[in-house]
Amino acid sequence: MKPYKDLTKEKLLALKKDLEAEYKEAQGKGLKLDMSRGKPGISQLDLSLPMLNILTSEDKMTASDGQDIRNYGVLDGIPEAKQLMAEMMDTTPDHVVVFGNASLSIMYDTVSRAMLKGLLGETPWCKLDNVKFLCPVPGYDRHFAITESLGIEMINIPLNDDGPDMDEVEKYVNTDQAVKGIWCVPKYANPTGISYSDEVVRRMANLKPAAKDFRIYWDNAYAIHHLYVDKKDEILDIISECEKAGNPDMVFEFASTSKVSFSGAGVAAMATSKANIEDLKKTMTIQTIGYDKINQLRHVKFFNNKEGLDAHMMRHAALMRPKFEAVLDVLNKELGGLEIGSWIRPHGGYFISFNALEGCAKAIVEKCKEAGVVMTAAGATYPYGKDPMDSNIRIAPSFPTPEEMREAAELFVLCVKLVSIDKLLEQM
Amino acid sequence: MKPYKDLTKEKLLALKKDLEAEYKEAQGKGLKLDMSRGKPGISQLDLSLPMLNILTSEDKMTASDGQDIRNYGVLDGIPEAKQLMAEMMDTTPDHVVVFGNASLSIMYDTVSRAMLKGLLGETPWCKLDNVKFLCPVPGYDRHFAITESLGIEMINIPLNDDGPDMDEVEKYVNTDQAVKGIWCVPKYANPTGISYSDEVVRRMANLKPAAKDFRIYWDNAYAIHHLYVDKKDEILDIISECEKAGNPDMVFEFASTSKVSFSGAGVAAMATSKANIEDLKKTMTIQTIGYDKINQLRHVKFFNNKEGLDAHMMRHAALMRPKFEAVLDVLNKELGGLEIGSWIRPHGGYFISFNALEGCAKAIVEKCKEAGVVMTAAGATYPYGKDPMDSNIRIAPSFPTPEEMREAAELFVLCVKLVSIDKLLEQM
Repeated sequence: MKPYKDLTKEKLLALKKDLEAEYKEAQGKGLKLDMSRGKPGISQLDLSLPMLNILTSEDKMTASDGQDIRNYGVLDGIPEAKQLMAEMMDTTPDHVVVFGNASLSIMYDTVSRAMLKGLLGETPWCKLDNVKFLCPVPGYDRHFAITESLGIEMINIPLNDDGPDMDEVEKYVNTDQAVKGIWCVPKYANPTGISYSDEVVRRMANLKPAAKDFRIYWDNAYAIHHLYVDKKDEILDIISECEKAGNPDMVFEFASTSKVSFSGAGVAAMATSKANIEDLKKTMTIQTIGYDKINQLRHVKFFNNKEGLDAHMMRHAALMRPKFEAVLDVLNKELGGLEIGSWIRPHGGYFISFNALEGCAKAIVEKCKEAGVVMTAAGATYPYGKDPMDSNIRIAPSFPTPEEMREAAELFVLCVKLVSIDKLLEQM
Repeated sequence: MKPYKDLTKEKLLALKKDLEAEYKEAQGKGLKLDMSRGKPGISQLDLSLPMLNILTSEDKMTASDGQDIRNYGVLDGIPEAKQLMAEMMDTTPDHVVVFGNASLSIMYDTVSRAMLKGLLGETPWCKLDNVKFLCPVPGYDRHFAITESLGIEMINIPLNDDGPDMDEVEKYVNTDQAVKGIWCVPKYANPTGISYSDEVVRRMANLKPAAKDFRIYWDNAYAIHHLYVDKKDEILDIISECEKAGNPDMVFEFASTSKVSFSGAGVAAMATSKANIEDLKKTMTIQTIGYDKINQLRHVKFFNNKEGLDAHMMRHAALMRPKFEAVLDVLNKELGGLEIGSWIRPHGGYFISFNALEGCAKAIVEKCKEAGVVMTAAGATYPYGKDPMDSNIRIAPSFPTPEEMREAAELFVLCVKLVSIDKLLEQM
């Protein structure tokens, strides 16, 4: 297929007419599909149903340290849950604190604690005139929402195929005291699906921050969320890399079983240095009497260890692959060679990130919506919801069925073509 | 028995000698009892064990509104959980937001949200020079810890037998713009066990705060925690009283099933006005993707409704009464008429509050500890851990067995006598 940009005006107009007829037909189908959020499908949730039968009134109600899992107490998680979450994050249990059901809450809390109480004795951020976070883009809208809601200034950093542009990151972090953090999704990044190279992780660990309370907010949300048995991305363990670099306190790592067991009823954890954990516990002890230890033990009994987690994730992958492939097949078949969009074939995670021609993303998403397919809002993958190029669109293939995904993808490419033609005609 | 204060020095010295011998003997017993926290006993936790079998892989995984309880979503709780928690708090579901496993976390969050974001458009407290909370005393140490940790100034308000001294409360709230809140445990108060009279609740609802963002933090922690079937304290519903008084937004009410089902794995909720709920949700949506809906449904299936909760609480009461009565019997028998201490016989809740002679509480708690019985630290029931009279001691009878409680109480009265005699001798 010839690139659209090389077509004549007449060719484009003729093409547009055909595509508009197709679009009209698609609108008539009454589609109602939601590809907006990274929400597991029902069959994925069913995979963990047996977990509901694994801890009954007949079972022992004590953790390995003898604590009654039903009563108050244990701030940082039962030992076996720390072990499981440590294995998930490729670190050791002494680095881990286990929380409640959502890593997003831990992240919000971690930033809001820094605002109100400060980190390791540094000035609380709410007392400062200016606090900035670096945001590799495109990135995760809920990260940006946390920093935006707390009045933290966000700075876009280009996200390359091997991670954030480290020249830019070093420039800001090593010189500007107001830069207090960077949001990272280091593995199967949300939304581009890329994983950080060893070089990027090492440069990250070797930052020389101007601010003592600069931290890397390392959201390892997709640590074990591979799509292929034989194509697994692996990243370096940021905790030990920071230790080696003499920056042991510089990272907060987050993970959860939200997309492993149940999205609303999983177990979330943080990994960080002992000094940070001690600092954190001073506030935790005021904030809570402890998290749900029954659910922690339920998870440990169901997954046992890393092998159990990995085996379970392969069952997820079997359900996810056909959905990803449905989208990618349609993209390749329909848009290959047209030069009106680019995308990456991810090895894991929850998203396919699509870059349209500059200035087309909003119109494409709107056009999809008018035909019954809801995508993540264009711009959502950028701080303040503002994609400077109006180009990036996040596709979340997990919730619909593979058949629905194919239908949705077909509508999507139709909208991409139509909007791109309009854009090209405009420029003629 | 004659009051100690009427005894001669010789009598007191002779008595002291006998009591010291008794104390020595008690020390020899090697007691190891903890009456420091309001922690349910193991047999109480066993009451809810069948709840672990009530939601299995065979059951329907949807809430009454069709939402999949396993997936993301539903910020404010599934409808049937709102209904159950509303019944517990004597309000209606439209006033209720259901959270995770601990009401303490909701309280911390509610205050920290006011610090960082402000309430209903008012200035965030972290931007103000001075923020004050009223603290009826004696009160709950974890309330005071929240406000202390956030740098909020605390003002002691006397707690009478029918609630806080409302003249004092009105004086502060109605005139001082810096007064932003009051901590209340309106029913079976922690630690005194008293419940607020209708007059106190009405005066509370009719406050005319100088600060628009003044709120009553109404911790209805013991809403259904009666000790006797035939002696149940009832209090007015603060939510509707505030509505009647034209102050609908003035109260945040908190409750949980921590001392109903499992202390670490219950369900917690807040009740407040619709305007406050809308305000709250703006932050909640940034803070979390939702709380554990599986556990919410588990609770609903187990308790069904208010009647189910009440019936369950009577089983708790049957286990708690002998412990309370063991302590009260010993107090009456051993200290009755001596005028070296006073206490209230509560109709519910988790504590017996003891007032020793002025200047004696710390020494009594220390003496108990030296013989193996750990009490809540003296002073803990006051802001900053400072009881100006050094008089109040909180006894938490729930965790030990009735036999252990009797032993502990016997040691306690021995320590009260010894320390009181020393105090009286000092004053001669």
